[in-house]
Amino acid sequence: MTEEQRRYDVVGIGNAIVDVLGHADEAFIEREGLPKGGMTLLNEEQANALYARSGPGTECSGGSAANTIAGIASLGGRTAFIGRVHKDQLGDVFTHDIRSLGVSFHTPPADDGPSTARCLIFVTPDAERTMGTYLGASQGLTPQDIDRDLIKNAQVTYLEGYLWDPPKAKEAFLVAMDIAHAAGNKVALSLSDPFCVDRYRVEFRSLAEQHIDILFANEEELKSLYETDDFDTALQHVRGHCEIAALTRSEKGSVIVSGNEVHVIDAAPVNKVVDTTGAGDLYAAGFLYGLTHGMSLQECGMLGGKAAAEVISHMGARPERDLRTLLDSATVSAG
Amino acid sequence: MTEEQRRYDVVGIGNAIVDVLGHADEAFIEREGLPKGGMTLLNEEQANALYARSGPGTECSGGSAANTIAGIASLGGRTAFIGRVHKDQLGDVFTHDIRSLGVSFHTPPADDGPSTARCLIFVTPDAERTMGTYLGASQGLTPQDIDRDLIKNAQVTYLEGYLWDPPKAKEAFLVAMDIAHAAGNKVALSLSDPFCVDRYRVEFRSLAEQHIDILFANEEELKSLYETDDFDTALQHVRGHCEIAALTRSEKGSVIVSGNEVHVIDAAPVNKVVDTTGAGDLYAAGFLYGLTHGMSLQECGMLGGKAAAEVISHMGARPERDLRTLLDSATVSAG
Repeated sequence: MTEEQRRYDVVGIGNAIVDVLGHADEAFIEREGLPKGGMTLLNEEQANALYARSGPGTECSGGSAANTIAGIASLGGRTAFIGRVHKDQLGDVFTHDIRSLGVSFHTPPADDGPSTARCLIFVTPDAERTMGTYLGASQGLTPQDIDRDLIKNAQVTYLEGYLWDPPKAKEAFLVAMDIAHAAGNKVALSLSDPFCVDRYRVEFRSLAEQHIDILFANEEELKSLYETDDFDTALQHVRGHCEIAALTRSEKGSVIVSGNEVHVIDAAPVNKVVDTTGAGDLYAAGFLYGLTHGMSLQECGMLGGKAAAEVISHMGARPERDLRTLLDSATVSAG
Repeated sequence: MTEEQRRYDVVGIGNAIVDVLGHADEAFIEREGLPKGGMTLLNEEQANALYARSGPGTECSGGSAANTIAGIASLGGRTAFIGRVHKDQLGDVFTHDIRSLGVSFHTPPADDGPSTARCLIFVTPDAERTMGTYLGASQGLTPQDIDRDLIKNAQVTYLEGYLWDPPKAKEAFLVAMDIAHAAGNKVALSLSDPFCVDRYRVEFRSLAEQHIDILFANEEELKSLYETDDFDTALQHVRGHCEIAALTRSEKGSVIVSGNEVHVIDAAPVNKVVDTTGAGDLYAAGFLYGLTHGMSLQECGMLGGKAAAEVISHMGARPERDLRTLLDSATVSAG
């Protein structure tokens, strides 16, 4: 199959989640026992109780891989998404938002069972976000939802580590990976969260080193994966294992390793960091848009950094601007 | 009844609405035939079709009087709200958000009939907002929902002109007004929107001149009320008819008239106007907080201007900051 025949640049598979975004102080995070900066899984009762104790919020579509796909679509890429919502108002919101960006999204919504997944996101005065997720309907994603033709027709299949949490979604993850590889396509994984890496370290290490072509991890996730306190030690571990690893370090920028190629990219400037939600997701969006449009790894990293800078300059995990404006300055060799 | 026995500063009655907030360009507003800067009523089919054609959005609790009540609560005032949602996810969001601010809200949600009201808000690059509203469950508000004790125990009953759109809500409006006046309390009205004034000009003029103690109107609404193109002409009409009229003029500030007292208040400074949604609602919040806490009319207008300045500096119609911080600088004589 030639590049021309591939209909999609990237297909994402992830938990289809609506974010409930609000402000909270440090004392609230501590009182609720939420690990600061991380994602805690909640059952419905816990989620409802936490919501009842929290302040006013704003609802917007989220989900890690879905945010990345939304970012690639905003850059002008051809994208699709696979994930499960319930047939309810928040499911309609998720579906509307992702389709309105031109993303192909046709996973049938659940008619019964739990409601659409919600992530309670608390932004503290330091702009850090702490999350509590009720997986709800997203747990209903099964291997049957993996559209083989979609995966075959996408240059890259992008998976989020959070898929390891709902048991059937993990199976769907593995099926999609096999289809993509059998078709000669690439598979990308985001490690999602240091606590998620803690939960599945052995499996993630084997995945990252043996099955994944493009690995996205932030510093904390990478250090958790290799159980080290030192970034460079972790870097040396991952180097040579993945075809490409893109490692993000917040204000320190990112490091990209691929065989003997190593790039150390400065962070893009941001006037004021308002909310770090979606930073990693949007970095992956810029990077994958670049990669599927013939950019160099250096250019991919720079575009990732710019997309991340946009999303942390406002509340919420999806771009507020048309990201195509980032392309003018990103590169001279965009495909 | 002494002031000490009144449990609430302000009780608001209005349409209980969830806003769906997104960006749009001028061409979209024109293509959809929406009157720029105004509010258009939509039936469910029209609302769904418009939503399908619009870009990604963010959901947050809204409703004109509800925004005002949220603002007064954020300033530290004792408030209650009366309005109808459906027992659905967006109804839960509305209920959560307003209660989380400490507002007493106990109108029973509808079990059947239309879903919770939604307002599609399109913010154009000039920061102006244009709205399309599906009234949904809010149309189910009836005179039976007016809690007599609540109205009797509130210094001010605040009503939005938009209540004139759902027929039963208009009856509820009139019942509430009578209860408030019989108890010796004040009744405040916001004219809501120049198109709303167009729809009900004769009734609104009679209300404003004969039944309302505190009138809130912006320049366009006031000019529509008196069918004149000239602000001062309209000002001379309204003067003497209401006990207090607070007239807002965007960047020109506000004018407050009460008998022989006239104040011309400058607009509070704003770094960057992002979205004007909620400007009038939050002006009313600051003004009414001041009025129910012993401030002078000049101070009430200044606090209204500051609350409006906060809400137009970000997307959405409810304050993002704890508005009590505005009080430090607002006045030296707060009660």
